[in-house]
Amino acid sequence: MDIGIPEPVRARMLETIERQDLGYPYWPDGDPVVDAFTDRMRSRYGWQPREGRTRVFSDLIQILQIVIEHTTEPGDPIALHVPNYPPFLAAIHRARRRIVPLPLDRTPGGWELDLDRHHAVFATERPRLFVLVNPHNPTGHTFSAAELRGLADIATDHQIPVLADEIHADLTYPPHRHIPFAGLDPAVEDLTITATSATKAFNLAGTRCAVAHLGYAPTADALDRAPLDYFGTPSVLSRIATVAAWRESHDWHHATTDLLTRNRDRVTAWARTHPELGYLPPEATYLAWIDFTQAGLGPDPAAALLRHAGVYLNSGDEFTQHTELTSSTYARLNFATTTANLEQILDRLDSALGKS
Amino acid sequence: MDIGIPEPVRARMLETIERQDLGYPYWPDGDPVVDAFTDRMRSRYGWQPREGRTRVFSDLIQILQIVIEHTTEPGDPIALHVPNYPPFLAAIHRARRRIVPLPLDRTPGGWELDLDRHHAVFATERPRLFVLVNPHNPTGHTFSAAELRGLADIATDHQIPVLADEIHADLTYPPHRHIPFAGLDPAVEDLTITATSATKAFNLAGTRCAVAHLGYAPTADALDRAPLDYFGTPSVLSRIATVAAWRESHDWHHATTDLLTRNRDRVTAWARTHPELGYLPPEATYLAWIDFTQAGLGPDPAAALLRHAGVYLNSGDEFTQHTELTSSTYARLNFATTTANLEQILDRLDSALGKS
Repeated sequence: MDIGIPEPVRARMLETIERQDLGYPYWPDGDPVVDAFTDRMRSRYGWQPREGRTRVFSDLIQILQIVIEHTTEPGDPIALHVPNYPPFLAAIHRARRRIVPLPLDRTPGGWELDLDRHHAVFATERPRLFVLVNPHNPTGHTFSAAELRGLADIATDHQIPVLADEIHADLTYPPHRHIPFAGLDPAVEDLTITATSATKAFNLAGTRCAVAHLGYAPTADALDRAPLDYFGTPSVLSRIATVAAWRESHDWHHATTDLLTRNRDRVTAWARTHPELGYLPPEATYLAWIDFTQAGLGPDPAAALLRHAGVYLNSGDEFTQHTELTSSTYARLNFATTTANLEQILDRLDSALGKS
Repeated sequence: MDIGIPEPVRARMLETIERQDLGYPYWPDGDPVVDAFTDRMRSRYGWQPREGRTRVFSDLIQILQIVIEHTTEPGDPIALHVPNYPPFLAAIHRARRRIVPLPLDRTPGGWELDLDRHHAVFATERPRLFVLVNPHNPTGHTFSAAELRGLADIATDHQIPVLADEIHADLTYPPHRHIPFAGLDPAVEDLTITATSATKAFNLAGTRCAVAHLGYAPTADALDRAPLDYFGTPSVLSRIATVAAWRESHDWHHATTDLLTRNRDRVTAWARTHPELGYLPPEATYLAWIDFTQAGLGPDPAAALLRHAGVYLNSGDEFTQHTELTSSTYARLNFATTTANLEQILDRLDSALGKS
């Protein structure tokens, strides 16, 4: 994001530095990040995380890698919707697990889940872990209550643990609504590891602070058996920043989602002027997943756009890496920027698309 | 420490926050913490760490736990000088490795290593890892060139990997001099994992940033096989703080070691007025390791001092935990505080010792 950090985060960090208070933390009532996460899930999403099941880590990729190591074995199949966030695909591949792609279909009405095909994939491939990225990256799809129920039934039928990456939850555009997977019912929570962080919605990627709620007992137990400090711990300032983001930054978050909503609507209006593009407005995230297949930009539209327009989009190819699928004629645009920057980006895309 | 943080650390952190620059770091030339560590080892200690062998972690305990897991097996013996830093003893015990105590003898002239007894212990116990805490905690002993050479010969004879915890190196009092174990010669470096951090000497414990130089190839290879983000990564601010400490905080460090030298000398002068105490001035660290056996304070002097004088010292017992040795009639005083605080502490100790 190009849009600064919340004032309360800035203020709490500055206070701490001015107090020169960077020694060992003294938090006799427990980690304030865990409390802030618990309160936020309850008050904002109506889900009550279980006491003693939340652990603090550096980031979502670390959590994914730890969950893979402690929940599956080399060679095991891991299911997730493809396209997906490239570092997730890379991490699964590097861990020598097998990616089982789940379908997400672009229809004129929106991205859709074909639950029958999901059932078939789970029955055939027998994945040992299901990584549910919700809201979904790169499409920005927010899984509906019915979709989540369908996925949950599959997970419970097959007793497959689920890693629910919900890092974009706070960037969901009304009327869409984020529903925590673990909150569906206790049987689902028993299978679910929920991972999130304040870093996306509050623009704090460099702080390296994320949480995992380990509803799935075998993984919780495996991590309890690991050495206590084996996975490291975020700094005091990073935890203070996370708490300030989750507890005190409502106004900033409101202003930011207003800006992102305007930007999303602007991208949508712009895309309508390009009938050659395939595009569905994201229901969450600040990411636009655009199909350039008919745009005449050749086999690698992202590279062509960088070359001809000086605009950097993520190449679609990365989002299907290590699978037999391809989204190479897609590209992902990040619109978490100022209105002026976004206009310049869209102008340049217009030029590259032969329209200015 | 009660003595604030270096001004350059404060300034660099504030600058970064004011720039609202907490996104993903962009460090195309590599991690600046690794460069700062490398430069500092070379310029200050005459040791040139190897390119590509330094990794960044959260803290020394994490590094110890990772090294134990990836260098030894459950049940393996691990040698270290006892007494030692309680979290190290606890971590070895919790990892179900066996602590092999190495002797460190209090003589009127200082703490001494009996190398013949070391040889005998290594020959008999065949430890699979040697954890060398140098400067030593709690005694503050700085291992001399001759002592390190003797220990290195034992390690190379038996081909035992060495984890050299050198976190207190920057708190060595002249004429004593810190010598990095890995710098002795290439054969020693091949066996040595050096761990350090700016957190002790620059009062930044909460920043959670430490480095390990993996001279011992089998451990380096094992960590290379782990998932890339498995052990987490320090925040951007923590890395900026570490670099500012190591590269820009000479004046603060100088002033702080002046204060600590005065405090150490004050504790030494005070201890001379108590012939019933066993005490050797530390050669490094801000820790005084005091033998209260003859002080008439009963079996747990630290508890008695807290009860009768309201002064908190670490109980000696913790420093021999999970071994058959005992240092329960010792206690460890932290003198990293203001002169006024130190005087009050010594006054209170005087009262408790029946001397005021």
